[in-house]
Amino acid sequence: MRLTLHSNYAVRMLMYCALHPEDPVPVSSVAAAYSISEHHLAKIAQTLARFGFVETHRGRSGGVSLARRPDHISIGAVLRATEHEPVAECFAEDRNTCPIAPECRLRPALAAAMEAFFGVLDRVTLADLVAEPQGLTALLGIKETADCR
Amino acid sequence: MRLTLHSNYAVRMLMYCALHPEDPVPVSSVAAAYSISEHHLAKIAQTLARFGFVETHRGRSGGVSLARRPDHISIGAVLRATEHEPVAECFAEDRNTCPIAPECRLRPALAAAMEAFFGVLDRVTLADLVAEPQGLTALLGIKETADCR
Repeated sequence: MRLTLHSNYAVRMLMYCALHPEDPVPVSSVAAAYSISEHHLAKIAQTLARFGFVETHRGRSGGVSLARRPDHISIGAVLRATEHEPVAECFAEDRNTCPIAPECRLRPALAAAMEAFFGVLDRVTLADLVAEPQGLTALLGIKETADCR
Repeated sequence: MRLTLHSNYAVRMLMYCALHPEDPVPVSSVAAAYSISEHHLAKIAQTLARFGFVETHRGRSGGVSLARRPDHISIGAVLRATEHEPVAECFAEDRNTCPIAPECRLRPALAAAMEAFFGVLDRVTLADLVAEPQGLTALLGIKETADCR
């Protein structure tokens, strides 16, 4: 069972923004720091903006910045917004091919298990993830002093 | 976030066996009932046998049968055995490309969330999934009377 890259990269982008709170962060800088696709990250920035987690700024000093304080961004809420891959095909009824779906008791059990998964992450905030920023900023090559709380 | 097909089909195969307790079930019958790959199911039967959930029988009346009572087969235990896809790349250290893995606090949060996911399913047994067999046997085309408890 795997988070989509979309979700994984979304949290990484939010962490980068939280570690670099002074200015909007160019998507290219986030992509370079993690060695991941700038094109993919640009789409993720749009998703995060649509759900009110970040603001996007155009122009020469443009980029992405947090739209809320890190301690007001729940990781569970982020993943509920970004994670659209159904846990099993019967959770996407238009794509289901399993003949027992109408009578299946695995489906509600999986739904309860997913809710428990997100429930743990609802109690984790972005601020928790960057509570000790020194090691992270060093690994990401962020030079500025980060005030992440 | 999606269960692998391997896990999904493993539970389906166990449900079929539980609904058809009299004799070993040919893998071809399970494949036909769910309209899924017999080759894939044969591999899954091997995994389930290795972990002691089923027994496989060779020969003309061969096939797969449960190795334990359905109420002694926890769905959490089945999925822990079959689900090898890491929730994020940093959970498979030989495949990790994320530079912040050594300092990342998302990883322990995801580990706790996965444990909560499996914890819910640890309390669900195969017997729970087939507790009302009539609808399931009709959908799967199983004619025999099923005593699933």
